[in-house]
Amino acid sequence: MPTIKDVAKLSGISRSTVSRVINNHPYVNEEKRMRVKQAMLDLGYVPNSSAQRLRGSKTKTIAVLISRIVNPFFSGLVDAMDTVATEAGYKLILCNTRGSKERELNYLDLLKTKQVDGVVFASIENDWSDIKPYLAYGPMVLCNEYTDQTDIPSFRINHFQATIEAVTHFIKEGRTKIAFCRGDETIGSNLGVDREKGFISALTSHHLSFNKQWLFRNVSSIEDGRNVMKKIERMTDRPDAIFTGSDEVATGIIAEAKISSIKVPKHLSVIGFDDQQIAGVITPGLTTIRQPINKLGEQTMQHMIHILTNRISFLGHTEVLTTEFIVRDT
Amino acid sequence: MPTIKDVAKLSGISRSTVSRVINNHPYVNEEKRMRVKQAMLDLGYVPNSSAQRLRGSKTKTIAVLISRIVNPFFSGLVDAMDTVATEAGYKLILCNTRGSKERELNYLDLLKTKQVDGVVFASIENDWSDIKPYLAYGPMVLCNEYTDQTDIPSFRINHFQATIEAVTHFIKEGRTKIAFCRGDETIGSNLGVDREKGFISALTSHHLSFNKQWLFRNVSSIEDGRNVMKKIERMTDRPDAIFTGSDEVATGIIAEAKISSIKVPKHLSVIGFDDQQIAGVITPGLTTIRQPINKLGEQTMQHMIHILTNRISFLGHTEVLTTEFIVRDT
Repeated sequence: MPTIKDVAKLSGISRSTVSRVINNHPYVNEEKRMRVKQAMLDLGYVPNSSAQRLRGSKTKTIAVLISRIVNPFFSGLVDAMDTVATEAGYKLILCNTRGSKERELNYLDLLKTKQVDGVVFASIENDWSDIKPYLAYGPMVLCNEYTDQTDIPSFRINHFQATIEAVTHFIKEGRTKIAFCRGDETIGSNLGVDREKGFISALTSHHLSFNKQWLFRNVSSIEDGRNVMKKIERMTDRPDAIFTGSDEVATGIIAEAKISSIKVPKHLSVIGFDDQQIAGVITPGLTTIRQPINKLGEQTMQHMIHILTNRISFLGHTEVLTTEFIVRDT
Repeated sequence: MPTIKDVAKLSGISRSTVSRVINNHPYVNEEKRMRVKQAMLDLGYVPNSSAQRLRGSKTKTIAVLISRIVNPFFSGLVDAMDTVATEAGYKLILCNTRGSKERELNYLDLLKTKQVDGVVFASIENDWSDIKPYLAYGPMVLCNEYTDQTDIPSFRINHFQATIEAVTHFIKEGRTKIAFCRGDETIGSNLGVDREKGFISALTSHHLSFNKQWLFRNVSSIEDGRNVMKKIERMTDRPDAIFTGSDEVATGIIAEAKISSIKVPKHLSVIGFDDQQIAGVITPGLTTIRQPINKLGEQTMQHMIHILTNRISFLGHTEVLTTEFIVRDT
């Protein structure tokens, strides 16, 4: 395989200048740059990125941790991040943790072994104390998820306020028996906790109490939504509204309602979360909380690249983006 | 930073044995393995994967080329591939080409610079003659897409037959004015060509002709489907059935029909492609062609890992998986 020495010999240009051309350093005379490039082409010389990495340059690769790519919320986030990353010459390694603490730590090892320059958490599984040691190996940014155990940069919405808005909407529409769905329980995250606090807060300020029978745990997919609806059908004391926390769960509930005696919204009012494409095309149209998915993904990645490019301190930046309440038919 | 030498010294074990432990070679006595691991832990020794790579070992990373991750067909494929890859200790780099020839070639450079061990094409943009030279740097496998310009391994369905089945269904239901949608035109791919051939073949064998006014090009999203419906509404001679080639396009058509004078399926019968989750939850339920998305993704990745693990020749393997025609309401 041809080496830098061969390129230098053929082009008649010093090895140090050839090296500068390969590493895209400035201050190389344009004519020399062209002669080096021509010699590289003639010889079939390929700069070995592994060798470049050993010499201290970066991988230009960022790990993105998500729970599952088939959730349109995550594929939307990754798509937005990818647009910004590609623009800046970075690649993304897709890290589907599938809710596993062990997989998450395996992916964090990529930082330790210098296979990625930084890590974006769009989902988080471990307690922060187990993640913190990896900060020694490179920067991390939180997107969507957040925890009060750390002050690393975080881009997110206000889940507490958004939930209050949704539940207050139910109450204004005359619903009083309100059910609540939550996703997987993650010890390292404040997201679920804040939604639950918002839910209780909205009920309390309208002198309503919470029937624990109407709390559904670990629901996140369309299939889970169908099962929630089946459970409600079997209840003697049924809720008349449900905060699903997810457009997918809401979609499952609406789909199941079509073959159920419980009709949406007549017997059961439904509010989703995200405003995914499906919310606008199913019948009845899903009332939901629109998250700025593109902005979340873009701003997170812009910040990560800013950190990597400028090698700056990366603590203490939190950006809370606004949501929009979208009223449709449910 | 501690080196292998330090680990050898602390553990009292030879450097070559330490190296075997680090590279997970078999035939190392279990007691020695534990002593080496303990010494690595005590010293905080981290095997540098860049260094490992230079010594000829592999990146354990595979590039997956798709056109866009927000299409549920692709996120489903990637999810299935990821399950198999993770199981085998491989990571995936997500390569969103967004239909760009240039981006595709940029991603192929990852093979050249030894940042990935192999490439899976789930979408293909360039002519094969431009992709072929990269085969010198590592194996490639096609998934979903295929072309008669090469005999590298390919996992796919029979698009010609599936289209004939769909169009024949229309004709049996008494529809005679059948429209056809196709995605982006890709010179390197036979997929679109085969669907079009199947379409014409089904019409011809039932003595029907094709009205070119009912050919819609470059449609692939829900938004595109809405626009197709608007165009049909403006026609004086309208089709009474439409082969959409995509559940997303079909969903857009059905959603737009709700605010249109053209009703589905009364005035316009619709058939999708893929059987994505949305097909079963929209109203009316979408009649479509089910692709074995999980199997496609899993078998492709299993084959890629088989090639990488056994360093075998990788030509001449084609697997054509079966589809299923799902009749719902449209």
